Amino acid sequence: MQRYFIPAENWEDDLVTIDGEDAHHILRVMRYQVNDTFIGNHPNTKAAICKIVNVEAGVVQAYVEQWLEENAEMPVEITIAHGLPKGDKLELVLQKGTELGASGFIPFKADRSIVKWDKKKENKKRDRFAKIVKEASEQSHRNKVPTVQQLMSLHELIEESSKYNVKIFAYEEEAKVVNYISFSEIVKELRESDRVFVCIGPEGGFSQHEVETLKENDFKPVRLGPRILRTETAPLYVLASISYHLEELRCK
Amino acid sequence: MQRYFIPAENWEDDLVTIDGEDAHHILRVMRYQVNDTFIGNHPNTKAAICKIVNVEAGVVQAYVEQWLEENAEMPVEITIAHGLPKGDKLELVLQKGTELGASGFIPFKADRSIVKWDKKKENKKRDRFAKIVKEASEQSHRNKVPTVQQLMSLHELIEESSKYNVKIFAYEEEAKVVNYISFSEIVKELRESDRVFVCIGPEGGFSQHEVETLKENDFKPVRLGPRILRTETAPLYVLASISYHLEELRCK
Repeated sequence: MQRYFIPAENWEDDLVTIDGEDAHHILRVMRYQVNDTFIGNHPNTKAAICKIVNVEAGVVQAYVEQWLEENAEMPVEITIAHGLPKGDKLELVLQKGTELGASGFIPFKADRSIVKWDKKKENKKRDRFAKIVKEASEQSHRNKVPTVQQLMSLHELIEESSKYNVKIFAYEEEAKVVNYISFSEIVKELRESDRVFVCIGPEGGFSQHEVETLKENDFKPVRLGPRILRTETAPLYVLASISYHLEELRCK
Repeated sequence: MQRYFIPAENWEDDLVTIDGEDAHHILRVMRYQVNDTFIGNHPNTKAAICKIVNVEAGVVQAYVEQWLEENAEMPVEITIAHGLPKGDKLELVLQKGTELGASGFIPFKADRSIVKWDKKKENKKRDRFAKIVKEASEQSHRNKVPTVQQLMSLHELIEESSKYNVKIFAYEEEAKVVNYISFSEIVKELRESDRVFVCIGPEGGFSQHEVETLKENDFKPVRLGPRILRTETAPLYVLASISYHLEELRCK
């Protein structure tokens, strides 16, 4: 069944009002009519089967038929902080990372990031990012839409990371040192509702200064398998592995 | 260090001759000269540090300085058979799947595949695929370049799968039945050198006929986490999870 994330202000008890792009999708793309049903997601993670009761001037009204018990959210919160990569790689990370269960994304200006964001275009970019994560959430049947924060500096990133209790960064060089704690040892220790902050470098990796700053702030360096992953593949490896460990390995 | 996969016929004991695109890359992109070094990969998975000894008419000759002991290959062989998806999704799967350690790829004509391959363009397409997996292998420091086989029918796919001892297909519906064997239970049983055949449906998933045919031929249906993954994300989840389990969870 088609799924739509509907803002809190559009819910009035069991009556939902849908306008804008979602209404367009319902009426023009799906060609739904009165009595057709879809899944409506309330932002506080509840979802319901909704039946269309009225269509007027491109606005859809629907009633909740049944609240659903389903939950497709990871048992831990994972935020991906990604050093600004080239081209449309960040968009790939947002889309695939949402499917794979990330709670949030933060782009940051890494020392080796080559792209510069035009301040004027930042709003347009953020709208586009919001659309990508919303659509990916709908398509993957998630209960929540991940957040995409604004571009941060390393300093702001470190400050933000103080809200998290598990902090890692992808840095294969570290796998060669003596006191190395492996990625899997960190995943094994995860407990429900842990908040995990994952920092990924841009194409050229982290600078020495960034590595030292991350370490000083309790980020643990991890290796993600023995092959060298491209910058946009690393977060997908992290998310798939944690999903596999917590949602597939444990659940059966 | 830059890595190049060099065909067997270009090796003569410890002397390597490089021409064509790789020579162009060495001389024009990397701007290497005599005495510069790179990693040369012999197709039988051995790699060596090679030093350039001669450059003439765009052809590079190099001597092996040191054979390397490194191995970045998965302990099991994994082939991804992918129901022909739309657009450039197959190219994404080839590139990311190579980074994540796949041994081979087989595109197949699924009942719900919408794209049709133009026979005339098939050779050009195969050249492009070969280039993608070669470049991804070099970039991710693999010892082997994965194979990309020609487009198969379901019948040919089933015949090909008889060479494999573990066969799975992504089919989340199945996670709801009683005798379900989870993906992680299958991964836990993997032993070194096992040959794993992974079948992924196109955008609309498998047809009922395909599901039945796969089951009759000992393919086990698996769920890949509780979220619905896009067709191109499913093989990446499988590869990252198996890498995580066999290369990260076990190795430490």
